[in-house]
Amino acid sequence: MHAAMYYGNHKLEIEDVPEPTPGEGQVKVRVSRNGICGTDLHEYYDGPIFIPPDQPHPLTGKAMPLIIGHEFSGVVTEVGTGAINVAEGDRVAIEPIYRCGHCRPCKAGQYNLCTTIGFHGLMSDGGMAEYTVVPVDQIHALPDDIPLEMGALVEPMSVAYHAAVLGEVTDQSRALIYGAGPIGIGLWFALRGMGLTEIDVVEPSPIRRHSIEALGACTLDPTTVDVAELIADRTNGDGVDAAFDAAGVAPAIESALNCIGERRPLISVAIYEKPLTTPLINLVLRERRIQGTICYTGDDYRAVIALMAKGHYDTTGWVDTIPMSQVVEQGFEELRAGRKMKLLVDPTS
Amino acid sequence: MHAAMYYGNHKLEIEDVPEPTPGEGQVKVRVSRNGICGTDLHEYYDGPIFIPPDQPHPLTGKAMPLIIGHEFSGVVTEVGTGAINVAEGDRVAIEPIYRCGHCRPCKAGQYNLCTTIGFHGLMSDGGMAEYTVVPVDQIHALPDDIPLEMGALVEPMSVAYHAAVLGEVTDQSRALIYGAGPIGIGLWFALRGMGLTEIDVVEPSPIRRHSIEALGACTLDPTTVDVAELIADRTNGDGVDAAFDAAGVAPAIESALNCIGERRPLISVAIYEKPLTTPLINLVLRERRIQGTICYTGDDYRAVIALMAKGHYDTTGWVDTIPMSQVVEQGFEELRAGRKMKLLVDPTS
Ligand SMILES: [Zn+2]
Ligand SMILES: [Zn+2]
Ligand SMILES: [Zn+2]
Ligand SMILES: [Zn+2]
Repeated sequence: MHAAMYYGNHKLEIEDVPEPTPGEGQVKVRVSRNGICGTDLHEYYDGPIFIPPDQPHPLTGKAMPLIIGHEFSGVVTEVGTGAINVAEGDRVAIEPIYRCGHCRPCKAGQYNLCTTIGFHGLMSDGGMAEYTVVPVDQIHALPDDIPLEMGALVEPMSVAYHAAVLGEVTDQSRALIYGAGPIGIGLWFALRGMGLTEIDVVEPSPIRRHSIEALGACTLDPTTVDVAELIADRTNGDGVDAAFDAAGVAPAIESALNCIGERRPLISVAIYEKPLTTPLINLVLRERRIQGTICYTGDDYRAVIALMAKGHYDTTGWVDTIPMSQVVEQGFEELRAGRKMKLLVDPTS
Repeated sequence: MHAAMYYGNHKLEIEDVPEPTPGEGQVKVRVSRNGICGTDLHEYYDGPIFIPPDQPHPLTGKAMPLIIGHEFSGVVTEVGTGAINVAEGDRVAIEPIYRCGHCRPCKAGQYNLCTTIGFHGLMSDGGMAEYTVVPVDQIHALPDDIPLEMGALVEPMSVAYHAAVLGEVTDQSRALIYGAGPIGIGLWFALRGMGLTEIDVVEPSPIRRHSIEALGACTLDPTTVDVAELIADRTNGDGVDAAFDAAGVAPAIESALNCIGERRPLISVAIYEKPLTTPLINLVLRERRIQGTICYTGDDYRAVIALMAKGHYDTTGWVDTIPMSQVVEQGFEELRAGRKMKLLVDPTS
């Protein structure tokens, strides 16, 4: 089978490798689509970062080289011994998190915070291949009315859904989203799915603004509008009930901390490359908070899949598919240049 | 009577003024002690900041010049009409917050966040005088076994107690306090009062470390110990359950964000003069949060007074009394120079 094998910084080879065989409690999945995200770009251009260069990961036993890809969907083609509640032909989205099961966060059900966490496609052979094998407890069945292309988006949409949950909103809440990239879009769909109708997306790039507007979102251009002033006017000084930083830049943090109401959160869902200048006095004076969020658990997967089954998510205008043979040229390079928003890889071409 | 009248930047006069008369729903209090805090210093050296220079405050109708002093205790000497549940001779601590009663936070009982908040001694004639008049619903009776000198500390100790509550701790929690000034000391007493036994106070100044050690606290010197490493070792990587920043400097924030466990808070109880470089990635990766806190409500006053009644608070070594006639020379100047930690003013001398 063909697979995208990672050998380190700037070294990703499309190779012919043996098909994997499902072990005890595993299933073999024929991959339909595998999404590329910032983590993959980071590994390629700046890595290895999460991928273990030589020490095998304690939960997976794997190190470099390995097949990348952690956002994928597919069809079960073989069921290993002891893998129950699954059948050949099942259409699935995969939750890529490997957890230890016995650390404090694992015991609390917060295995996205597992102290020895691993990821399929970063600490094991992943989904950028024609086939992959995964533990059966990491698959989620996709209802028939969810296309497999959509199924490959369950992972990033769950990152955003998990962040939305931490916003502690109700359907009466007002929210602000900073950044209209894939996570910002995912936040918008998640919050809409929770019933919110008053959401603004703050995004300086006209292309990204138009892209999310086409999905139905209201946007604000922070280069021409004083967002804090506008929100204060609109809410009679109360502020919004939650803000979400999916931009990861200081002006977003600063603006958000001026816009949220007392005792309300700014949810940080960006990977901050460096410390940001943060006006903490804005937390103190209104007892606001900044809450970090990362990844998801199965609850988020189930919520996103339920919304997808209702036709809630729309990929028009922001998701494209490319052949795996062109993953660097048409994938990483286009994403890094900002010419594409979200790309799925077809491993059969 | 003698009173400390604020006329603006560097202008505080000890004057002879008429004694006030309690209006409807007010009581007249003979002030025993009035504490000086950073807010007073800020008004004197950099102000007016909170004190309205000319526009009368909407809740109190007062502007400069006015009598300062918002941390005080005393004895009721006269009861205005309609003031119930109070009698001449009652020993009281005063909650200085004036609130509107109808804004969103007021309706939610969080009147420390009232959008038109005022303070006795900043937006009205305050406690740095032989007498002052206050609304009866802002007094708290002091049990006989609490000295009036101690009663003047209820206000700053309530600031710290309110912060401690936001730490969401139990008697099994581990906590870190950054900064051993009056609020850091108050945090230590508050957390001890909640039953915590594993508390470390991080403080670079040897004088402040020795001062809080004399009260029974364990301290860490961040100039000689790698606090994050030590805490990781001690807690087997779990981290502490809450950290409190009463220092207000970037190294404290950075250290604290390395020391707290997943989904746990850093409580910000400092008045940050400028934005700080904050490693937000430390929030994201462990889903930590930074929670701002300010002032208190009556619940905090009641909790602190209950602890004081049990003899929980000890003023040895960190609280001194000075005569009001020397408030600038022996008060503001000594505090600003860091030669004194906490000073109470005796308005009769
Ligand atoms: Zn990803
Ligand atoms: Zn674990
Ligand atoms: Zn004060
Ligand atoms: Zn109010």
